[in-house]
Amino acid sequence: MSTDQTAIVVEKSARPIKGVRLATACAGIKQTERDDVTLIELTEGSRCVAVFTQNRFCAAPVVLAKQHLAQATPRYLLINSGNANAGMGEIGRADATASCLELSKKAGVDQTAVLPFSTGVIGQPLAVDKITAVMDELITALEEDGWSAAATAIMTTDTVEKVASVQCQYGDDSFTVTGIAKGSGMIHPNMATMLAYIATDVGVSKEVLSQCLSTAVSQSFNSITVDGDTSTNDACVLMATGQNTLHIDSVDSSSYKALSTAVNSVCKALAMAIVADGEGATCVVHVEVSGGQSVAECRQVADTVALSPLVKTALFAQDPNWGRVLAAVGRAGIADLDADKVTIYLDEVLIAESGSRAANYDEQAAKRVMERQEYRLCIGLGRGAEAAQVTTCDLSYDYVRINAEYRS
Amino acid sequence: MSTDQTAIVVEKSARPIKGVRLATACAGIKQTERDDVTLIELTEGSRCVAVFTQNRFCAAPVVLAKQHLAQATPRYLLINSGNANAGMGEIGRADATASCLELSKKAGVDQTAVLPFSTGVIGQPLAVDKITAVMDELITALEEDGWSAAATAIMTTDTVEKVASVQCQYGDDSFTVTGIAKGSGMIHPNMATMLAYIATDVGVSKEVLSQCLSTAVSQSFNSITVDGDTSTNDACVLMATGQNTLHIDSVDSSSYKALSTAVNSVCKALAMAIVADGEGATCVVHVEVSGGQSVAECRQVADTVALSPLVKTALFAQDPNWGRVLAAVGRAGIADLDADKVTIYLDEVLIAESGSRAANYDEQAAKRVMERQEYRLCIGLGRGAEAAQVTTCDLSYDYVRINAEYRS
Repeated sequence: MSTDQTAIVVEKSARPIKGVRLATACAGIKQTERDDVTLIELTEGSRCVAVFTQNRFCAAPVVLAKQHLAQATPRYLLINSGNANAGMGEIGRADATASCLELSKKAGVDQTAVLPFSTGVIGQPLAVDKITAVMDELITALEEDGWSAAATAIMTTDTVEKVASVQCQYGDDSFTVTGIAKGSGMIHPNMATMLAYIATDVGVSKEVLSQCLSTAVSQSFNSITVDGDTSTNDACVLMATGQNTLHIDSVDSSSYKALSTAVNSVCKALAMAIVADGEGATCVVHVEVSGGQSVAECRQVADTVALSPLVKTALFAQDPNWGRVLAAVGRAGIADLDADKVTIYLDEVLIAESGSRAANYDEQAAKRVMERQEYRLCIGLGRGAEAAQVTTCDLSYDYVRINAEYRS
Repeated sequence: MSTDQTAIVVEKSARPIKGVRLATACAGIKQTERDDVTLIELTEGSRCVAVFTQNRFCAAPVVLAKQHLAQATPRYLLINSGNANAGMGEIGRADATASCLELSKKAGVDQTAVLPFSTGVIGQPLAVDKITAVMDELITALEEDGWSAAATAIMTTDTVEKVASVQCQYGDDSFTVTGIAKGSGMIHPNMATMLAYIATDVGVSKEVLSQCLSTAVSQSFNSITVDGDTSTNDACVLMATGQNTLHIDSVDSSSYKALSTAVNSVCKALAMAIVADGEGATCVVHVEVSGGQSVAECRQVADTVALSPLVKTALFAQDPNWGRVLAAVGRAGIADLDADKVTIYLDEVLIAESGSRAANYDEQAAKRVMERQEYRLCIGLGRGAEAAQVTTCDLSYDYVRINAEYRS
């Protein structure tokens, strides 16, 4: 029995997960009245896995979270927005350690059971005392219904909170997957992007949970791009509380497939919400490259097109400037590409074939596609059977405004 | 005897080159009153070499110019702005051929002696009849003093004409090098950039001239970046008329060194003018990476930093957000980079050391550097003795405006 036959319905609100409690507080790190510290508590016996940024300058909390994950089973995730605690060297490491230690004392666990996460400005000292000052308040306020508040408290330049939930029936059991994420700039595959926290009430072994996260991330957060910049702080955490009757110990089981499908759906929904909220974005475009000799070369072309400033400004202008797309394909590094075999579609509208403007090219039809909030830009390479996809957004005035003003 | 001891003075006006005549006309391709067609005539016996875009979608005129260069010695260069004649397939090739043929008939040369160049919008049919209509006018108007008008006529989104001249004394001889260029967007190394035409009155063998061009391009046009997009039409042409008493047949001669130095100086001046005129650019930044294990890895870091939208918006905001620089260095692909050894300077101001904020970091001092119109962003990797440099500009509101409105 599997959920494959049932369409998965992803809700944009958060169903609570038994065994996960959340709380938020305003520590004043953001210099606004908004909550900027989030605490997530996992009940004893939970499993927790994570993937992190591959940036060589990974932030102090990333280094420490990796260490703690290797040493113990996490019970608390402590997340602050407003400051990334990155690029701070020894001070940063000391600050991340101090905040875990303080929380562990107050919560009565070993400090290795606390995972720290930070997001925000790089290169400013973290005000640990401000975080410590709200810890009692956080612990007291922990509740299963805290997901939505947490989704808001982890935001930086995000304009909307990103929440997704799926409830699945599996035989006589039902289980839930709920996730929140933040991120709108510095979004580029190469491990995750931003911060994402996904939890389920299913019982899952650590190995199985790792596989489940890895699959979901490759299909979601690692297939989106906003500006090509990978952050120093990206992290994606998958938690399983085991508070449900369903337990999964093997990736070969049909129950694993049900869980994996649900986690994929939640991660994809969160990833699409991130692109749609890309800094200054006015549209979401799925760049689908097919007809390649390898997935890698398709991905290379998709990335080049999805990141080209000239393509992205044309998307913003709703200008079917397929010449810019061809130019990006042409410089993507496939040395023996036969330009005369390349085709380009905007959704159902053929705009280029045989490497040049389509014979029946209808600019008005192409423009109508680009007025959609979400559409596909499909590129055929005509040299093989492989394919790859990257989802991107446009480059607008607001991207520049947001990033030029971010610190002021 | 060499010119090495004498400082080379690059003038921003054009000294005529004996043996080169130029003319411009308004064919109405740009749909404005500005001249948009340029004709350059080389006297008989001249030598001419060129490098072209490496984009797989090289435009029809690029394909044809390469063919003609292989078949004959060029006598005429026919350049239009307003239309790139790119992505037009067979029609584009026929149009490029037709314009060369028409000119060759009127000028009384073989059509292989004509090199075509086009720049402007991709994917629109070239109005060959409009170009043909002004050919007689162009031939009649040819004059040695036509450089400045040509520099203006080849412009597209450029806001200023780009001209550079050098006059050199070599022993009892003196020689001149003059160049013009266009380009402000789609500027990224990987062959040239834009269009550039450089000429000298020295007599030079084709092989020596090729070497001279190759050296100059790698130090100039291939070391600048505006938006990472390489055009389908990029070309850089070096011409030598031999109308001077100085003749150079070997790259080992001191006279070659003098010529090479002069050509390098002209190309660098033109390349810097292109970056300074980068679409929407408000500053020019030399990204200098040193301490690498290879030139390639230094270049890789320099390119990543120079192209990062987050870095470029920070340059625009005059915000010494060294965290964004560190993040870009960290994702540049050096797997074994030791983050703790990285240092960053803005001109003379140390802003990061040991991979984090400098102990004596003075944000006001850093801001003052960024208020300069031109400055250096120096990154030390602390792992070797190699270095590389790329010159870039900032990413401003105007970049988006120019590229979102380019076709309207």
